[in-house]
Amino acid sequence: MSRSPSKLYYRDHWPSAENLSADSLLIFDQIFAARPLVWSWIKQFPNRYPVKSGEKLKDVSVFAKHIEAIEKKTRNLSSRNLKIIVLGGGSVGDFGGFVASVFKRGVELIHIPSTWLAAMDSAHGGKTALNVGGIKNQIGTFYPATKVYLIRPLLLGQPTERNFEALGEVIKMALLSGGKLYRALNRVSNFDGPALWTLLPMVVSEKYRIVQRDPKESKGSRQLLNLGHTMGHVFEAHFELPHGVAVLIGTQFAIEWSYQRGHLSQQDYLKLVRAPFWRVAVKEKLRSRWRHLTMASLLEERPSVYRNYLRQDKKKISMEKVRFIFIKKPGRPVIDTVHLKDIVAEIARQGLIWG
Amino acid sequence: MSRSPSKLYYRDHWPSAENLSADSLLIFDQIFAARPLVWSWIKQFPNRYPVKSGEKLKDVSVFAKHIEAIEKKTRNLSSRNLKIIVLGGGSVGDFGGFVASVFKRGVELIHIPSTWLAAMDSAHGGKTALNVGGIKNQIGTFYPATKVYLIRPLLLGQPTERNFEALGEVIKMALLSGGKLYRALNRVSNFDGPALWTLLPMVVSEKYRIVQRDPKESKGSRQLLNLGHTMGHVFEAHFELPHGVAVLIGTQFAIEWSYQRGHLSQQDYLKLVRAPFWRVAVKEKLRSRWRHLTMASLLEERPSVYRNYLRQDKKKISMEKVRFIFIKKPGRPVIDTVHLKDIVAEIARQGLIWG
Repeated sequence: MSRSPSKLYYRDHWPSAENLSADSLLIFDQIFAARPLVWSWIKQFPNRYPVKSGEKLKDVSVFAKHIEAIEKKTRNLSSRNLKIIVLGGGSVGDFGGFVASVFKRGVELIHIPSTWLAAMDSAHGGKTALNVGGIKNQIGTFYPATKVYLIRPLLLGQPTERNFEALGEVIKMALLSGGKLYRALNRVSNFDGPALWTLLPMVVSEKYRIVQRDPKESKGSRQLLNLGHTMGHVFEAHFELPHGVAVLIGTQFAIEWSYQRGHLSQQDYLKLVRAPFWRVAVKEKLRSRWRHLTMASLLEERPSVYRNYLRQDKKKISMEKVRFIFIKKPGRPVIDTVHLKDIVAEIARQGLIWG
Repeated sequence: MSRSPSKLYYRDHWPSAENLSADSLLIFDQIFAARPLVWSWIKQFPNRYPVKSGEKLKDVSVFAKHIEAIEKKTRNLSSRNLKIIVLGGGSVGDFGGFVASVFKRGVELIHIPSTWLAAMDSAHGGKTALNVGGIKNQIGTFYPATKVYLIRPLLLGQPTERNFEALGEVIKMALLSGGKLYRALNRVSNFDGPALWTLLPMVVSEKYRIVQRDPKESKGSRQLLNLGHTMGHVFEAHFELPHGVAVLIGTQFAIEWSYQRGHLSQQDYLKLVRAPFWRVAVKEKLRSRWRHLTMASLLEERPSVYRNYLRQDKKKISMEKVRFIFIKKPGRPVIDTVHLKDIVAEIARQGLIWG
């Protein structure tokens, strides 16, 4: 279906649960049962399905159990009017989006992302996903939500130490789009809730701009969103880092390699690594629980380990080649085909720089 | 994705396995391991996955096991070029189509239907499906094959006693479209392989005509294809009849009700039930293993049994209403909303006519 892009609702208050709850199933992160303000909203839904967030939720081996329970819970609702509303972060959104896309061959899907990372990235653009045999996102669909609610008190209520996890996607997006977003990013002095709320609409509209040119990643231009993700996914899988943190480090890797490979001139490289936003990012990192994480420590594995992960890359062209996103300047990304051996050589090189 | 309709290849010979097998996984009905001619074609595929056909294959509880095995089998292939080729009847096609639609968020899908019923119906139009908690087709996708191969020796090699299973869909389609197909159906004196091969392109093109107006069943006109299916699905589920046989009887039920409800005039009703094709259908039934199956015996269950099945209807409007397809004349179907209590009353009435 070439579905129209999602309608976005930026809200200072929670939307009326009364309107949303008719003919709907709310799939929500069970963590909110312990948050009285959110819970008082959730409990207005007669049909709800709590889930535990995290990669286990997305494992295909538990999918049958979930979908059987969801089928039972919704049996008394009209299948044609059914809406699935998903309240949670990235894993809950990936799972709930997949459920909505296949249940009765597709029912209406509404996302209410509860983390900055989901609000900036995964709630938009329609990618849904489950994991297979421990490998992330091996199955899924393209199924944009009809509506995405971005609710200020929900997002600002997120534990501030998790704000850091949104940074990778914000910086990635600013590097891809340049211009207004890149300048706005450089004016921010803290990545606190109010700053992220200000950046949010710019990040989101840049994502839609890229997605709409290539909604199913069939033309290739949507692959730009993969900036920082090739190595990001390796760090995420091997070191069990949160997605956002892994992408931030993957983006740093991509910048270094862009310079080394000649895509980024020395002048632009220096401008980039001295830009105000890097200083703020480093400050945030030192405040976060990831303060001890160094690029050097992430790059000291054996080459065969990296190679195995890179072969799981969904953008791989063959067993030995993947597409990699480089940067010429903020706003000027380049997609290039690289050999795994080149990536492995670059890992070794950066391991030495950072070591 | 609004995918273009499938390319159809009517072939008197098997297509070259050499071309098809590059970057592909063949999912096939394991029954063909025992058919030397088909097997000699299959074994040219380096990557293949045999399955046992039937509703168990479609049970979501075994999906994780299948997709894990398929992920392992295809790990060394380029995900971007991967094709899934599905050789089998309806259940294998529904399963394989679903796999292709979600694997890596969708890979190329090619259908090679091996039964008349699949060749006439399920291989076309993009519906894929799995069963949840024993209820048929509760999850699925709309994902048309890029290509469908209709291979004469494969279809004519099907055990002739199973030709009868295709009749329900042929008659349904002729009633929906009228005109050329209806006239052709009335010229047939046996539903043998050569006759079905002659009817096949007409049945298939009529199906695409209906599907293309409403590919995702969002406008409603695709629901016309549900003629004979509302009660057909009840018979199929409760009496474990093959889909085709259940649809044939469901179509007969729909014709009777169309007359009783005044959609079909007495003149048109008599013309229809005396049409040559009914005589041939009855002759085929008496030759088949279903010769002892009577409408009366199918209609003697308690009303609550029917009501429970009808509430699983994916076209239900509410707990008490579903859409039902009636016939005014061959070529003039009508979609109407009916109460379950009206269906149950009609079941009781027909139980008496046929009893």
